[in-house]
Parts: sequence; C-alpha cells; structure tokens
Amino acid sequence: MTTVVKGGTLVTADRSYEADILIEGEKIAAIGADLKGDKVVDASGAYVIPGGIDPHTHLEMPFMGTTTAETFESGTAAAASGGTTMIVDFVLPGPDGSLVNALRDWHRKADGRICIDVGWHVAVTGWNETIWREMAEVVKLGVNTFKHFMAYKGALMVEDDEMYASFSRCAELGALPLVHAENGDIIAELQKKFMAQGKTGPEGHAHSRPPEVEGEATNRAIMIADAAGVPLYVVHVSCEEAHEAIRRARQKGMRVWGEPLVQHLTLDEGEYFDKDWDHAARRVMSPPFRDRKHQDSLWAGLAAGSLQVVATDHCAFTTAQKRMGLKGFPSIPNGTGGLEDRLAVLWTRGVETGRLTPEEFVAVTSTNIARILNIYPRKGALVPGADADIVVWDPKLKKTIRAADQLSIIDYNVFEGVEVTAQARHTISRGTVVWSHGQNTRPSAGHGIYIPRPAFPAA
Amino acid sequence: MTTVVKGGTLVTADRSYEADILIEGEKIAAIGADLKGDKVVDASGAYVIPGGIDPHTHLEMPFMGTTTAETFESGTAAAASGGTTMIVDFVLPGPDGSLVNALRDWHRKADGRICIDVGWHVAVTGWNETIWREMAEVVKLGVNTFKHFMAYKGALMVEDDEMYASFSRCAELGALPLVHAENGDIIAELQKKFMAQGKTGPEGHAHSRPPEVEGEATNRAIMIADAAGVPLYVVHVSCEEAHEAIRRARQKGMRVWGEPLVQHLTLDEGEYFDKDWDHAARRVMSPPFRDRKHQDSLWAGLAAGSLQVVATDHCAFTTAQKRMGLKGFPSIPNGTGGLEDRLAVLWTRGVETGRLTPEEFVAVTSTNIARILNIYPRKGALVPGADADIVVWDPKLKKTIRAADQLSIIDYNVFEGVEVTAQARHTISRGTVVWSHGQNTRPSAGHGIYIPRPAFPAA
Amino acid sequence: MTTVVKGGTLVTADRSYEADILIEGEKIAAIGADLKGDKVVDASGAYVIPGGIDPHTHLEMPFMGTTTAETFESGTAAAASGGTTMIVDFVLPGPDGSLVNALRDWHRKADGRICIDVGWHVAVTGWNETIWREMAEVVKLGVNTFKHFMAYKGALMVEDDEMYASFSRCAELGALPLVHAENGDIIAELQKKFMAQGKTGPEGHAHSRPPEVEGEATNRAIMIADAAGVPLYVVHVSCEEAHEAIRRARQKGMRVWGEPLVQHLTLDEGEYFDKDWDHAARRVMSPPFRDRKHQDSLWAGLAAGSLQVVATDHCAFTTAQKRMGLKGFPSIPNGTGGLEDRLAVLWTRGVETGRLTPEEFVAVTSTNIARILNIYPRKGALVPGADADIVVWDPKLKKTIRAADQLSIIDYNVFEGVEVTAQARHTISRGTVVWSHGQNTRPSAGHGIYIPRPAFPAA
Amino acid sequence: MTTVVKGGTLVTADRSYEADILIEGEKIAAIGADLKGDKVVDASGAYVIPGGIDPHTHLEMPFMGTTTAETFESGTAAAASGGTTMIVDFVLPGPDGSLVNALRDWHRKADGRICIDVGWHVAVTGWNETIWREMAEVVKLGVNTFKHFMAYKGALMVEDDEMYASFSRCAELGALPLVHAENGDIIAELQKKFMAQGKTGPEGHAHSRPPEVEGEATNRAIMIADAAGVPLYVVHVSCEEAHEAIRRARQKGMRVWGEPLVQHLTLDEGEYFDKDWDHAARRVMSPPFRDRKHQDSLWAGLAAGSLQVVATDHCAFTTAQKRMGLKGFPSIPNGTGGLEDRLAVLWTRGVETGRLTPEEFVAVTSTNIARILNIYPRKGALVPGADADIVVWDPKLKKTIRAADQLSIIDYNVFEGVEVTAQARHTISRGTVVWSHGQNTRPSAGHGIYIPRPAFPAA
Ligand SMILES: [Zn+2]
Ligand SMILES: [Zn+2]
Ligand SMILES: [Zn+2]
Ligand SMILES: [Zn+2]
Ligand SMILES: [Zn+2]
Ligand SMILES: [Zn+2]
Ligand SMILES: [Zn+2]
Ligand SMILES: [Zn+2]
Repeated sequence: MTTVVKGGTLVTADRSYEADILIEGEKIAAIGADLKGDKVVDASGAYVIPGGIDPHTHLEMPFMGTTTAETFESGTAAAASGGTTMIVDFVLPGPDGSLVNALRDWHRKADGRICIDVGWHVAVTGWNETIWREMAEVVKLGVNTFKHFMAYKGALMVEDDEMYASFSRCAELGALPLVHAENGDIIAELQKKFMAQGKTGPEGHAHSRPPEVEGEATNRAIMIADAAGVPLYVVHVSCEEAHEAIRRARQKGMRVWGEPLVQHLTLDEGEYFDKDWDHAARRVMSPPFRDRKHQDSLWAGLAAGSLQVVATDHCAFTTAQKRMGLKGFPSIPNGTGGLEDRLAVLWTRGVETGRLTPEEFVAVTSTNIARILNIYPRKGALVPGADADIVVWDPKLKKTIRAADQLSIIDYNVFEGVEVTAQARHTISRGTVVWSHGQNTRPSAGHGIYIPRPAFPAA
Repeated sequence: MTTVVKGGTLVTADRSYEADILIEGEKIAAIGADLKGDKVVDASGAYVIPGGIDPHTHLEMPFMGTTTAETFESGTAAAASGGTTMIVDFVLPGPDGSLVNALRDWHRKADGRICIDVGWHVAVTGWNETIWREMAEVVKLGVNTFKHFMAYKGALMVEDDEMYASFSRCAELGALPLVHAENGDIIAELQKKFMAQGKTGPEGHAHSRPPEVEGEATNRAIMIADAAGVPLYVVHVSCEEAHEAIRRARQKGMRVWGEPLVQHLTLDEGEYFDKDWDHAARRVMSPPFRDRKHQDSLWAGLAAGSLQVVATDHCAFTTAQKRMGLKGFPSIPNGTGGLEDRLAVLWTRGVETGRLTPEEFVAVTSTNIARILNIYPRKGALVPGADADIVVWDPKLKKTIRAADQLSIIDYNVFEGVEVTAQARHTISRGTVVWSHGQNTRPSAGHGIYIPRPAFPAA
Repeated sequence: MTTVVKGGTLVTADRSYEADILIEGEKIAAIGADLKGDKVVDASGAYVIPGGIDPHTHLEMPFMGTTTAETFESGTAAAASGGTTMIVDFVLPGPDGSLVNALRDWHRKADGRICIDVGWHVAVTGWNETIWREMAEVVKLGVNTFKHFMAYKGALMVEDDEMYASFSRCAELGALPLVHAENGDIIAELQKKFMAQGKTGPEGHAHSRPPEVEGEATNRAIMIADAAGVPLYVVHVSCEEAHEAIRRARQKGMRVWGEPLVQHLTLDEGEYFDKDWDHAARRVMSPPFRDRKHQDSLWAGLAAGSLQVVATDHCAFTTAQKRMGLKGFPSIPNGTGGLEDRLAVLWTRGVETGRLTPEEFVAVTSTNIARILNIYPRKGALVPGADADIVVWDPKLKKTIRAADQLSIIDYNVFEGVEVTAQARHTISRGTVVWSHGQNTRPSAGHGIYIPRPAFPAA
Repeated sequence: MTTVVKGGTLVTADRSYEADILIEGEKIAAIGADLKGDKVVDASGAYVIPGGIDPHTHLEMPFMGTTTAETFESGTAAAASGGTTMIVDFVLPGPDGSLVNALRDWHRKADGRICIDVGWHVAVTGWNETIWREMAEVVKLGVNTFKHFMAYKGALMVEDDEMYASFSRCAELGALPLVHAENGDIIAELQKKFMAQGKTGPEGHAHSRPPEVEGEATNRAIMIADAAGVPLYVVHVSCEEAHEAIRRARQKGMRVWGEPLVQHLTLDEGEYFDKDWDHAARRVMSPPFRDRKHQDSLWAGLAAGSLQVVATDHCAFTTAQKRMGLKGFPSIPNGTGGLEDRLAVLWTRGVETGRLTPEEFVAVTSTNIARILNIYPRKGALVPGADADIVVWDPKLKKTIRAADQLSIIDYNVFEGVEVTAQARHTISRGTVVWSHGQNTRPSAGHGIYIPRPAFPAA
C-alpha cells in the first residue's frame, strides 16, 4: 500500500519547498510534484516536517523512591499526538549494577507497548570492570550514548575519575558521553542548609540549584571530555553559565553539543514562588527553571548554532507523587512533562516570534539530534529511503493547552493555559498515520519499534 | 543525453553515502544505486560533492589605477579546474556612479567568456537618490547583495550614515548587505605615518592594517545592521577581533555571517617580512595575513558554526602590476589569487588534519553560501532538480602547487610549494564535464551563465 | 590659624583608621592621635574622607541653543554641600574655534565666583593647525585632558581621522584624551526615523541612543587610542557594551579608564516612559538611563576595578529650558543634575548595600580621578602636605532628597524622593569649612581657585 | 637609635615622590624632607619601596617523600638579599591531622632562625569536627587564611563537599580560603596514561597538567566560594583559563584574587623539553610553566587589576631530590625556587618593558597582599607607624643571575643566566639593615618575628 502526503510545503533543516511525498510501506519512496498513491494525507495549507525526535525522556523509570507515572504506552501516545515520532529514553542500571540487564529490562517495559519508535541511552552510574566490559556489549546492542549524572549524590552521581574512565571508554567504543551537569556535592550541601533554615518548600529547590552550580559542572565535564579525547553532549542546558562554557569549548574547536529544554526556554523561576504548593512542586525539575536572562541566552544559542537540540526531559510524576516532598523539597520527585507539547510550544514561542526560522525549528526538534545520534537520514530527514516519520504541521491550528485535554497520564501540565498557534494535523510513524487531529484517534500501542544506532568510528 | 556519476561517495552538508547520480541535461535527475546513463563519469574511490561556490572574486576589475589581470575567461577556467563551479563577482560603479550601468558593464565583460556560472554583488560606494532608486532595479536584475567598503578612503569607502541608509534600503528590498570591514580613516593615517617613517615596503602594509582596525569596523558594521534591522555578511574575516564581534552579535540573536578566506586560514604575516620584495608584495591584500592565533580562531569558527563560508577574494595582479608600489606599499595593488586552489588547500589543511569533517568542508565551500545567497538548492546541493554542478573529488590525487602549472593568468601563486592531498578528478558544470584531471582539458569559455538570485522577503 | 578634625575614622582609598587631622592654612599638616589646633571640627561618630572630586560638570555652558542654568556659583555651592571639593568642568571652543580663547572665557566665568576648586578639560571639536598648536598652549596653562565628542553630529562631533590626529597630539604633549562615546551618525539617523514615525516624546530619546550605539563608539575610540599610542578615559560609561569594550582593552594591557555616572548606577530607562512629559524630559541626558542589567554591570565594574570613577555629568537645565523640546525629543537640552547628591546616593546604594567598601567609595569619588588627572596627592588624599580638602562624612545623617531643599539652581532633582543614609556633616576646602550641615551655612563664592594639572611624560 | 633613609624616591602603590624616611626602633617615625637620624642609609639615585612580601613559600616542608631543602634560615636570608622582608609560609598538618599541632611545629622550625618576618597559612586537607574546631583556634593564633589543595590526590587533595564545609567555616570565622586549583582526579588519570605510554620524563609533567585542568578547578573553587559566601584567593594562577574564570567572577561582583608567580610570568613550557633531564626536572612545579599566550594574559591581568599579587611558591628541592623522579615524572618533587629573585626579575621584565608602572610593581609585590592578608599598613606601606620594612631599590644595579652566587641553599636557579637591571641596595627589616649589596652582609638568623594577622569581620 502507498500513501501520498499531498499539497503541503516541505520544511527540512536546509530548505522549504512545495512537494508531495510518496510513502511505500515504512519508507519514503519519492518526493516530487503530483505524486499518486493509494491513500492521501491532506497537507494543503500546512507544513510537512520530519517527525519530532525527543532525545530525552524518562518513562516508567524508578527514581527517588517512586516510578515515573508516564508509561511507555501513554508517553508515546502523547508524543505522537504532539508530532513526535521517536523518543530516546534513559536506561538506569538496577541494583545488580548491570548495564545489559537494565537494557533488557527497558526493552521488556517498552516492547509491544510503544506507539512510536524508541532508542536508548544507558547510564553509567559508577565504575568497575564489569561496566567497562558491558559498555562494549551495550554498543553492540545499538546504543551509542552513555549518560553520566554529576548530580544526585549518593544515588546516580559519578566522580571525576569515573567520568574520565567512562569517557575514555566511550572514545574507544565510538560512543558519545552525555552529562547531566550540576555539581551534586554543592547541591547536597545547599539542600541541607536550606532545610536547616526551614526553607522546605519548592522555592528551596530553585535556591539549592543556582545557575552557577550547573555552569561549573558543564565546564568540568567539558574539560574531562577534552582530556579523554571524546565529543560531549550536555543535556538540559538551562542557563547562560552552562551555555557559555559550551561556547568556549566550541571556540577551541571541540565538539560539544547542548540541549535546552522547551520548559527552560519558556518558563521562569517565578513558578517556584507560587503560593500553591502543588503548582510549584509540579514544576520541580533539575535544573530548575531560570529567569529571563537565561531564556534569552538559550534562544540566541539555538539561532546561532551554539546550542543544537530542544528536548523535554519528560519525567512525569503525578501530583500525588510530588507530595512525597511535602516535608521537604529534596524529596519532591524531580521531573515534569512536556513530550506532548514540545513542538507546539517551541513553534509558537520560537517561530511565530521570529527567533527561529521554520528550518531551524526542524533542525532543533529532529534533524540535529538524528545526526548527533547517528541515525540520520533514517530519522530526521525527508529524503527517499528514510523512515516515513512525517508530521503534517498545521500553522493555523490553535489551541489552549489544558491538562484535561492531554494524552499524557499525569493530572497537570506545566504549560496549562498557554495558547499555541500550531499543532500536528497528522502524525505518520514509519508510514502509518498514528494520529490525526480532531478525529479521536488514539495512537496504537505496539506500533513502535526499537531503533538501534551504530557506533561512531572509534577515536 | 544523460550522464551518470558512478561509484562514488556522495558528501553533502548533512551526510555522506554511496550513490550514483543521474544527470539529464543540466540538472540532477536522480540519485540512487545502480543508475544508468549514456555516459559515465567514474567516481570510484572518490567523493562526489556539490561544485564549489566562491562568493568573492574580482575579475577584470579596475582598481588602484590598474585592472586585475585575471579575466573572466582565465579566472573561471582556473576555478573549474579546482572544483569550483560558480563564482560571485563584485560589480563596482564607474565614474557615472550608476549601479545599473556597472551591472551592464560586468555582464558585457563576462557574457560568452565564462567557463562556469556567475552571479553578482553590486557595490554601494556613496549615497544619493539615484543609488537609492537603482538598488531596486539591481534587485530586479537578480542581485540580492550589496557590498560596502569601510576602507579605501577617498575611493570606495562609505561613511556610517551612508551605510545606515544603504542597509535600511537593503532591508526594504530584501537584500543582504556585505561589508569589507576595516577602518579606512585609521588605515590612511597609519599609511601616512609609516611612509613618513620610511617604512615603505610591504611589511608596512601589514603594520598599517592591524587586526584591531578590522575588529573595530566589523563591530561597527554589526551595530549599524542591527539599527537598520537587516542581516549582515562580513567578507574576508581574518582575525579573532572580527570573529569575536560576529560571535557576540550572533549571541544576541542577530543574523550575521562571516567569511574567512583560505589564505587567512593557512598563510601568516611572516610572508610580508620576506626579503624578496616581489614575494611579499604578491601577498599584499586587505586584510593582510595574520599570525597563528588568528588562524586558530578562524578554523574553530568554521567548526563551531560561528563562521560559515570559505572564499578567496581572488583579485589577481601580476608581479609587474604589484611593482606599481615599489616606492610605497600604499600603491601596491591589493589582492592575491586563490580561486584555483581553494578546495585543495582547505581539504588538505582542514579535513586531513581533522579540523573539519568532509560534510563541513562541503558546507563551507558550497552549501552555506548557496543558502545565504538564496540560490539553494539550485546550487550547493546534490538533490534531484538541482543544477548538475558536481565535482568528483579524489582524496588520493596529490600534487604540489606550482604557478607554472596553473590555469590562472598570473605569474605566481601564494600557495607555491604547498602539497595538497586531494584534487578534482572531474568538474561538472550544469551537466557538462568541463574539466578532467590529467586529460589536458581546458574549460570552454562561454559555457557559464548568469544565475540571478531572488530577493529575500523584505523586512 | 590651625584646625583639627577630631575624633573621626579616616577612610582613604587604601585603609580606614582612627586619627585626627591637623590643618595649617590650606594644607594638611599632620595626621595622628590627639592633635590640637586653634579650632576643632567634630568628626566623632563619622568618617573623614578626602573631598569628593567630580571630574565631569558643565556649568554655564552654551549648548543646544541655550545655556546650562547651573552657574559656577550655584553649582559649586551645591557641590560643597554634598561633600565635593573640586570639579573639573568642560571648556567648549566658541565660534572662533580657539581653544585658548575658550579657556580664558571659562576662567572669566568662574574666577571669583566658585566656592570650591576647579580644573578644566578642553574640547577638541574639529581639526586644523591652529588647534594642533593651541593644544600645546592649553597644556602649558594646566590642562592635561582633551575631550572628544563622537556624538552631537553637526555640532561638537569629530570624525575618526580627527580623533586620531588629536589623540596623537595628546600622546606628544603628555595629555589624556577623553571621549563621549556614542555613534553620532547613527543617532542622527535614528532621531530622524523616530521623529518621522511620530515618536516625538522623551522615550524617543532613549530609543534613538541604544546601548549598542555607545558600545560601538567606545570600542572605536579604544582602537584609535591604541593606534595613536595613548591612554584613554571614557566618560559616562552607561552600559555593559561599553564596559565590555573597556575590559577587553584592559586585558590587552591597554590603559583605558571608564567613568560611570551615579545616575546610570541608580536610575533606569523606565523614567523616560513616565506619563508626565516634564518628568521624562528632565531626565533626558546622553547616554540615557539603562535597564537593570547595565546597572549591575557598572556596579561590578567598580568593585572589580575595570571601571574607576563615579561622576555626574552635571549639566543642568530648568524645566522651562527642557520644554524647548516639546515638539521633538531631539531638541530637549541634554543633561541632568547630580553634583549635590553624588556622594550621598553612591554611599546609600553602594556602600550600605555591600557592593562597595568605604575605601572603594573614596577611591571612585576622589582618589582615582586625582591620580588619573595627575593632581594626586595634592587632591584625593589624606596625607601631610595635601590640600586640606576634607569631608566629615556622617553615616547616620539621613535625609530624603528634595529639589525644594537643594542648593542647585534648578527646579527639580532626578533623585527626588530618594532616601539617603549619609551626608556631609562638614565640608572643608583648602582648610576652610565651607559647609556645615544644619547650620544654614552657604558656601562662599570666591573661595575656590583654579588647580592647574601638569602634563604626563610625553609618549 | 634612629636611622634615616636619605635621598631616594619613595615609590608606593599610589605615588612616587622624593622624601627621606626616619626610622625609630622598628617603626617608621616620619617621612619628609631633610630628616636627620643617628645613622644614614643612602638612597640617592634609588627608589625606596616597602619591603617585598612573598605570600607563598614552602620552607622545610615534608612533601612527596622528602623535605624541601630550603630552610627557614637559608630561605629568609635569600629573601632578604632579594628585597623581601616578609614571607607567608604554608603549614601542613602532620599524621595526627591536627592543625594546631602543625602550627606549633612550624613555629618550632622557624623561631629563632628566620632573618625576616613570617606569617602562616594553614592547610585544610580533609574534613572532620576536630578540624572544624581547630580552625577557630588557628584564627585566634593569628592565621586568617586556610589553604585547600584541589590536586595531589591521595595526599593533600580535598573534595568539593569538604571545600564547601571549610569555606563556610572560613566565612564564619572571618578567614580567607586559598586554593591550589588543579583537578587532581584528572591529573592522576593523565599521569597514569602517560606513564603507561612510556612518557616518563619531565615533559610528561607538563602534558599531564594542561591549562584546562587548572582553569576547571579555578572555576569550581570560585563557584564553591560563591555558594559559601566567602571571598577567595587563588594561588599560582598560571594560565588564561584560570585568569578568565577569575575575571568572570569579579565581573559578577565577587571578591576573588589571583596570584601569578614570577616564574609563570617569565618562563615557558619549552623548559620541560630540554634534553638535559636535570634541567627539566628542576623546573617541575605545579602548575607547570605555560606558553607565551598565557604569559601575556598574566601580565595584562596585573596591569588591569584582575590579578593582584606576584609570588614565588618557593618550594626548593636539590637536584639530588629531583632525581627521586628519574623513573617517572610523577615522583619528581614538585617545586622550584624564586624567593631571592622575584623582585629583580619582575622589575626587569615588567617595569623596564613598560608593562607595569613602578607603583604597580610595589602594589603586586607588597601592598596588595598586605591588604588582602589584613596586615596593612603595618606591612606593605611607607607611612608613619608602619613597620620599617624598607628596601632601597637600585635601578642601575645590574647582575646576571647565577646559582653560584645565590644565598638559597639549592644547587641551581631556574633564572640562571637572566640579566636583571635592578637589585636591592639595602634591605631593612623592622628598622634593621639586614642586607646591603656588595658588603658581604649575611642576614642574621633570628631577627625575624612572627606576624599574627587578625581575622576579618565574620560573614
Ligand atoms: Zn537530568
Ligand atoms: Zn533527564
Ligand atoms: Zn575587501
Ligand atoms: Zn574583495
Ligand atoms: Zn557627554
Ligand atoms: Zn558631559
Ligand atoms: Zn600549589
Ligand atoms: Zn605552593
């Protein structure tokens, strides 16, 4: 069976032009004028873009004494409805410390339940010979990225020598290290200090994780990557200090990439001072939201190319879960949602305002990360032979974001009340329309598959 | 008739992959495996890249009391042999001050003589209502860029208010202003000072145009573009000071592009201190070559994306012409060659050393400038429908650059003795093989055509 | 007759300590414990500091079709009451263009009328051989600074080559160039643009002089000073852009100094959007007030040492004079007051908040400028042999600033309503108490004298 | 008995002027013209400056399995002959971990043997409640500075949480934290790597401690000081990366000071590539010498005020001791001399070249550190009441530095062969001439005393 996406304006990272797309099976077969197929997806008056890739999600992940409420099924359905056709989720080793077992575990959770495609990052949360050995196995299993937490002391955090060892191993294996860059030691001390002072509410979360703490860790991770001779990808860059460290590295000729989140681009730290504890706690994530100065820095970085990817760090807990931290902010599970709203919010606040061109929008939501993760042009591109992950993006389809309307499983939305000016009209995942606006479609669990990613040439 | 470029690895700005290219007439008809055509161009063991675009040449241009020796015929032949399939040349108004007449004049010089395609930039060297009016005509004639000289006082130089007026007019017309950024006032003073001190040789040229003078003007042009609400393209960025000004602007969210020359990336100011006057004078160009620190800055900028294009400012005078400045460096005609060697030198010093990826090489020699000049993907891309401007780039074809071997008309080469590790095996211009290595081909004058460029949406 | 300042804590640029000061005639004779004299000035519970020096005033100056309302008599009385014991005022050449005649004219205005001491800066507002010659005469007459306006096109503005010529002449003479750094060309264009758009009110003043315009000119002046081989003093540094240019120069090893005004440190651009035209127009000065980000930059610069002096640019017009610009902001006479309030406002907003130490307060209000102007330690120091310019500074003497209470001649005060926590208890000028708080003293006109300043060693 | 220093030009941090100094006992009694005393020290044709203070020495210190060869007696004699009248030496806790016992131990080593005055910094090399308690005792004993090593893993190094704890304790006690800023984790890894690669010579020392490793740690220490709310003093700042981190902090308004060493200002990393192992090993210190770019940065920092103090880190091992590292550079005892030559080398390379003014020379060798260490103006000043630590500095007394001529106990000198243009003619310590050039004087052991330093106001 063939499908034609008809009458739209294709927008890719490098250009915009009018054309139809012919899909055969799961792949794009042709791009051109007046194509014909068995089935037609109407793109008239709309843009046609490569499906969004969210490289930073945490579904059904045990964390801080609970498990993220968003499941692989609900999360990927939400993603699809928002125009995202692939996620890359974080695999954390369990009590046995095995990377390979953890990877199996994540497959078990996802397989048969995901509506769109998935890939994995695997976390290195300590260092020993088993990990050293398993990293090679993990790479063979299609994972070319390893995550390192510089925060969450006593839990996920790794020390500098462990990072150096793991980064060096990445260099050998042709894998890319990722870092959550915040200084865990200092955060732990500041948490103690504010708790001791009786500042136990969510605002303590923001105060205990100032931009300086993130800037420091980013700078340190870059130095370690430089010493190990490996590129670096910095997740959730939220502030000028971290961005500045990245810029400095790039101006030395280093290959360092930075990933702002749509939340940090658009929401500010004032949220933590809301008198409603629930409101504030729902927004507790790390790094916390920052003030306007930092937002301006992130937007400029996307336009200038010093930052490359917009993700969500979707790590969604219910209000009930958030209340585990009622007695003290350090116990509020860290994480917010966003997977469903990333494209619409970024378009509205970025493209409509003139900060980003439509081509840049595609680059930062899809193409750049596909290239960085070595799955381009299978993903992130509109070219013959690519997976037919395609979104018909309607720039006139307005809505007001409401938790009540969302597919995400949780009971609130950090973008509640935000008016967006554009949405996905249709979302196509490997050739199948998995979501159409206004048609009560529900993305079907089980459609998604695992996308292995080849290693890079070893250093 | 159809042609197939067979057996190569295509390298574009976004990826590398094996495929054949089918050419029908002047256009790329298809890209894929096992394509067949009437004629085969062998690309086995080679890369296949979009033809180079040199956006900065001065052929047969009256300047400093003489005329550049390189003709449209010899220059475009040299370009073709080096893998460049399009140039954009600078049109200077003549004594009547008319932009439109100058444009006609340049067409007259080029038409029927060029071996590859050409476009124009038109210089705004003063300000009055005629210029204001003619700018619109020029845009209609397919020129979407206007050049402004901040140096060459008493000749081409414009004042700040004139730049503001012209930049504002560009904004209205959807045109892009270009600047030669050096402070002409201060250069004139420094020239007088060094001449008065008896420092009359070519080294005085370098001393009278320090990096600070370029950094200053770059910074000023950026501010004026900001005030006028228009993007800016800075030609021949040669130093960290100018690069830094560009970075700062980009980090404000401004659209500013910078163009290093292959000469500034690889040659240093020591050349001006050579005891052979001819050697030094042949390298006199503005801005002058800089020291190693600046070269490192430019290379990092290309990798980081803060600089986007590598050009040559090919403005070639013979040794005899250079000797017009025997009595004083200010009279040495400013300009060097490079058009023929740009790709080979950049590949050798950039890609072979690991500073740039092959994809980045394509981006900075072709794709980026095509996008900036609004002729993408007609030029700068390997996609069906694009002009078949294609180079079979052989990474094993070494040579030592020698003036004696070159197609360029002049009697020396600033890269004399440089060993390059790669060269064009075949150069294809709009479907025609115009040059093949080792086959005594001579690119045929008259093959090239004028490529008009549409305006951008007006501000 | 001898006087002892008794019981205070001396604060100088390098330390604080308890001591008495013995004054004999016009000079400090001794500093130590338990000194005795004919007369006692009570400093108990107070700091004793070198008298403030305001290096930037415009008294009785013809400008923009009128003359500043503040006279040498009223201005210096206001200064004395606020703890300032010396001003350096700007001499502008008249219609005959002669620097020497202008200097005589300013002497004529000031002699016999000033309450405190005075020095001159002389403006170079064009270039010719007479100016070149007269600059030497001016230096012999005790002026070691020349002012250059990069703004006020068509009036005071000089071009880059003129600046270079004058800066070079300064280098020969051992004089220091000063610049008002704003790009006059672009301001003139923006004024025209906003006026044409009907934005004729004071807010147009702010919009037509954005920080970029100041940053650009600062950067340019620095380059020119570098080329001429002379240090540079940048007056009224109001923004991060200008500050950044200064920092970059200093980090090259250049000698560049920056002078923020107390107004720019404490008032923001919101003032220009006040609905009361008079309120806004009274605050029209160049550069205009800036937003908070710039204020933070200036405060940090004072603490870091990258900015050195706090002045006022006291250039006071009455409301009636301001109304000359009712029809269009470009006609509003540029300038505000501040001379009377500089120390109190800076102490309150700087020292009380912990941004500056008391020693730094003394450095930036007195010692640093005395050193820069080559009159240290005659002025700016508490050492035996220095002029007895001494202020007993009472850190518990609060007041709310009110135009109704001021000595300044004008009918408003830009700090109206600001509560200050400290004031001068006594102001001593060359040994004479010229002002005492709460005693209805009026500084006596004629006490002040002219302080010639020797040239620096020539370059 | 009184002494008069006669006929010289006094140079202090703020000015130069001709005057005599009258010394009564250990103190300066008067400064003025034509003073008379029992004894005359001839300063004609010379400068008279406050005695140098070297805030960074390691005498008779157990380290890396041996003990620095320079004793308190030899080291302070060497210092005196070079114009230094006070050192501040580093106290390391012994095996019992007690700060107080270590302090007693250092007193035992120094008392009765030192030729000039001494103060202490005490190192915090771990964290526990005893240290927390003893820090208060140490402050009471006259030590207001605590040193923290971020390098020397497995020995002196502290972790981030320990630094935060100690810095916070400093804030409570009014003490100033000092850091040796290099990332010890990464250095240990790089040492292992280079040793494994067979790069066992001194050049491995330089390669294993690149500027990035120092820049990173400096940045981290600054962040921790910011979090703890305490100023910071960074010892031996050797590179642009560290300097840049300091500048950034100061531009946030933080109080951070940086101390380049005279070695880093003048010697470059080429020394480690000398074919003579001894030559290279004698220069092994941490951080290692850097290339020219970094030297330029440090000089500019001293002129700009972003760096404040020039020290030596005098930590002198004999060649025999250096040979402990013949089998591998990590075992070469880290440290060089310099105490005797600091002033002469800095004057020659700094003042004679025009990089620093004579006043800045005094500031960075004496006054600034006295202020930072809270012993000003007892030390670092030429004012009545100050300790009579005075150097008659003869700007015409040339010599070539030779280990054969030095007072330092070690058998080589890193400045061997350097020609200096100025030296101490006389060194006066608390009123006593302890050294005179060319008179075979030997500073007498036992003259020096301990100078306690009061705490700062607690935060
Ligand atoms: Zn994270
Ligand atoms: Zn995450
Ligand atoms: Zn040019
Ligand atoms: Zn050119
Ligand atoms: Zn001004
Ligand atoms: Zn002024
Ligand atoms: Zn150290
Ligand atoms: Zn040390």
